[in-house]
Amino acid sequence: MSESFQNLLNIVRSIGTLISIESVLRWDQETYMPKGSIQSRSNQIKLLSCIIQDFYKSPQLIESLETFLNLETGEIYNDSLESSQKRLLKEIYRDWKIANSLPTEFVAEFAQLKSESQYYWEEAYNKNDYSIFKPYLERIISFSKQKAQFINPDISPYDVLLDLYEPGMTQSQLDPIFKDLKSQILDIFSKISNLKSIDTINFSNSSFDLGKQQELSIQLLNKIGFNFNCGRIDLSTHPFTTDFHPTDVRLTTRFKSNDLLEGFTSTLHEGGHALYEQGIDQQWYGTPFGRYCSLGVHESQSRLWENHIGKSKSFWQGHYQKIQGLFPDQLGDYNVDHFYQSINHVKAQPIRVQSDEITYNLHVLIRYEIEKKIINESISVDDLPDLWNQTYHDYLGITPDSLKEGLLQDVHWASGLFGYFPTYTLGNIYGAIIFEKASEEIQSLDKNIQDGDFTLLRQWLQTNIHSVGRQKRSLELIESIQGEPVNISPFINYLKNKYSDIYNSAL
Amino acid sequence: MSESFQNLLNIVRSIGTLISIESVLRWDQETYMPKGSIQSRSNQIKLLSCIIQDFYKSPQLIESLETFLNLETGEIYNDSLESSQKRLLKEIYRDWKIANSLPTEFVAEFAQLKSESQYYWEEAYNKNDYSIFKPYLERIISFSKQKAQFINPDISPYDVLLDLYEPGMTQSQLDPIFKDLKSQILDIFSKISNLKSIDTINFSNSSFDLGKQQELSIQLLNKIGFNFNCGRIDLSTHPFTTDFHPTDVRLTTRFKSNDLLEGFTSTLHEGGHALYEQGIDQQWYGTPFGRYCSLGVHESQSRLWENHIGKSKSFWQGHYQKIQGLFPDQLGDYNVDHFYQSINHVKAQPIRVQSDEITYNLHVLIRYEIEKKIINESISVDDLPDLWNQTYHDYLGITPDSLKEGLLQDVHWASGLFGYFPTYTLGNIYGAIIFEKASEEIQSLDKNIQDGDFTLLRQWLQTNIHSVGRQKRSLELIESIQGEPVNISPFINYLKNKYSDIYNSAL
Repeated sequence: MSESFQNLLNIVRSIGTLISIESVLRWDQETYMPKGSIQSRSNQIKLLSCIIQDFYKSPQLIESLETFLNLETGEIYNDSLESSQKRLLKEIYRDWKIANSLPTEFVAEFAQLKSESQYYWEEAYNKNDYSIFKPYLERIISFSKQKAQFINPDISPYDVLLDLYEPGMTQSQLDPIFKDLKSQILDIFSKISNLKSIDTINFSNSSFDLGKQQELSIQLLNKIGFNFNCGRIDLSTHPFTTDFHPTDVRLTTRFKSNDLLEGFTSTLHEGGHALYEQGIDQQWYGTPFGRYCSLGVHESQSRLWENHIGKSKSFWQGHYQKIQGLFPDQLGDYNVDHFYQSINHVKAQPIRVQSDEITYNLHVLIRYEIEKKIINESISVDDLPDLWNQTYHDYLGITPDSLKEGLLQDVHWASGLFGYFPTYTLGNIYGAIIFEKASEEIQSLDKNIQDGDFTLLRQWLQTNIHSVGRQKRSLELIESIQGEPVNISPFINYLKNKYSDIYNSAL
Repeated sequence: MSESFQNLLNIVRSIGTLISIESVLRWDQETYMPKGSIQSRSNQIKLLSCIIQDFYKSPQLIESLETFLNLETGEIYNDSLESSQKRLLKEIYRDWKIANSLPTEFVAEFAQLKSESQYYWEEAYNKNDYSIFKPYLERIISFSKQKAQFINPDISPYDVLLDLYEPGMTQSQLDPIFKDLKSQILDIFSKISNLKSIDTINFSNSSFDLGKQQELSIQLLNKIGFNFNCGRIDLSTHPFTTDFHPTDVRLTTRFKSNDLLEGFTSTLHEGGHALYEQGIDQQWYGTPFGRYCSLGVHESQSRLWENHIGKSKSFWQGHYQKIQGLFPDQLGDYNVDHFYQSINHVKAQPIRVQSDEITYNLHVLIRYEIEKKIINESISVDDLPDLWNQTYHDYLGITPDSLKEGLLQDVHWASGLFGYFPTYTLGNIYGAIIFEKASEEIQSLDKNIQDGDFTLLRQWLQTNIHSVGRQKRSLELIESIQGEPVNISPFINYLKNKYSDIYNSAL
């Protein structure tokens, strides 16, 4: 590698390190920070955002980039580079172009606002009081629109934001996929709704010791191969995973005494994200190749471990006895079929993270529809609760009882993450493609899942997904795995097979 | 305040905020960071140190300072400033002068080294194996000497380092104070050693539940007025207190099941530091006036709460029943006098933080003597264990059984803190002066201590010590309280009175 390329990478790596420091501050804010210091923390984050912007706009970085490419067009005119270096340059240019389009003061204020807004969302959520959060949400929306305008004033603002999380993806690509998905999901859902209901355990009638739930979560993380020497698990209001480096990956979860399911599925979900981060190639740390491919791909990993493993028949056939042993009073009367049916029970209910694999995607499509209206049109924050409830009624035929179960249930918008939700359903689509391929290539996979031996699966995922990082765009990566352009068939097939078995009826 | 002065303060405050971010990284390293990520954390700290140095050396700060003073001499030539502004400028100049004398690359490497070194000290400590830590210590010493040389090559290097922690203090001022103190302490110690030993409880024969010890610590912190909305307590190998802002002050402690004393005294000690940080005037945050006066003054606060309150007869007369109730099996057979005598039992033993108020200072003087040799002379790290043991033998007549109880017991040198230890004994001297004065001015103090009502004492300390920050130098501050040049009489009187009572003999 030439000295000038190495020099460019050094600056880029410094920016990556600064971003990782900001992640430490955000992790601490969500886990251990005392409540009274939100202003001081926001101030730290604001300053750090400014410095990151200054690094992006520094003459050193600009001169270094100019050695290799045209700053206006991104065209690389240094022909002595290897193709992987050109690819890396293209990704570096992408990040630089976005950062460079944003005024530093804007980024700093937005960073501070997001930090505060997340704090007041939590207060609003806990008090079920929208008025606490509303003024922050209003500003967040305004900042998000401005951000899209700064980055690219010539295309739909929602496309600009979507591209931040799923590089290369647009509404015009997503809309037909989601339209098709919606119709197929609604078809399956309607068929299931008309079937005889299955026999399930009502977990909410029992109380599950939080300490034991935590013990179970740690066992599960150990089992799937999470490396506790290079990561940890903590509690937070909204579960999340963050990485400061592949050697320091932190996930959070939450436990409720009357909900056994949410605790371990959250842990497995975040555990899937965490395995991805621990599996990223350290040699590229701080550069785009050392970052995840896209949020859709990230979500494919969390959903794979949460659903394809953690809600699978094979896994529980091999592990139900253990969980029964942990909670003999609550589960002693039920067999593995009861348990498996109960954790996969399809039911329209208002909370996304508690929903089954069928209706989950409708929750996401609802948010996608509302987000597009918020960003592309002009909707007052005052009208959002009604719009939310109306859309839930249209899709799922239900109306949330409270804001906590409705508009306030997710932290994402408080964090300024518009354009992020669709990656959740992309994650389901990608996850099914990936799991189908892994099942083909690992002959023993089903037995491995039953035995709780995930060595082969983890290795396969590390080779084919984790270590790739941003060396490929998501559609390119998934297409290379599926062997054809990305489509929803594997996901729909997976759902039909699984739920036909559970509901004992061809769907 | 003029716009140019405001502008200067803004840059200074940014540096303060960056330092607070570095403190978050260090706090996390000592509390929650997974072991495997030490390299990545050191790298983050190194980069942040570089950026702080860049801020200090930025043309903006230099131009801003030049508006007010001569950069070579520090002479202030702007006569329109108020005297407090001049004072603040003088302190800003002091910080700038030190930072500016250090090459950025040197600071960055030293920061990285300290972070790594602290990590390997912990490993060496846990394994009682000096060889793990020795190469790091060697480099730390070399860097510390270089640092002194950079800051001021014309004076004794130890004076340069001492001045970093106790601004204005020199060996020539300290030596006579410490000589006098040593002789008086050794006199008291020798008298006590010749007296009949007192009746004490052997705590190490019992087991004290760690959860209950934690409960006790939290109760004590609440009692002394620590604000948990703006701070928290965690566990670490070596207890410490750090602040990111007066609204985010974090202390750590440690508990051992066979040592009741260490847990609560550590908590009260760190609690005293924490009250100081919570009491600092927020309007000066990020500037020198918003920082503690000196480490000696900081230690005066920790020792005041640890010893003058937490090891006092009055406090335990009012609180022994509670601790007895918490540990009925272990303490049921003993009365408050037993307990009070036991926690104040004078005995030569190898560990500084476990020592009584008499011998404690000998532990500090030992370190002071060794440190001066390390920094001013050339001692090989190979010779340090012997030098340590010999000096312990000379002062206290004992030899540690292990490195864990000897040279490896303190984290300070691993953190590059040479010149720091003497501030511990200064803290005892200052603490006695402050407590004597507070006792004079708060008529009800003794009763308040017995009742556990610390409102008046805390207010007094906040007004007279905490809120002053670096508006005064330590000797100036303490002299203004004592009403005469700082001397050891109040401390010696305090010790003689306390231990004459405990040992029932005039000392």
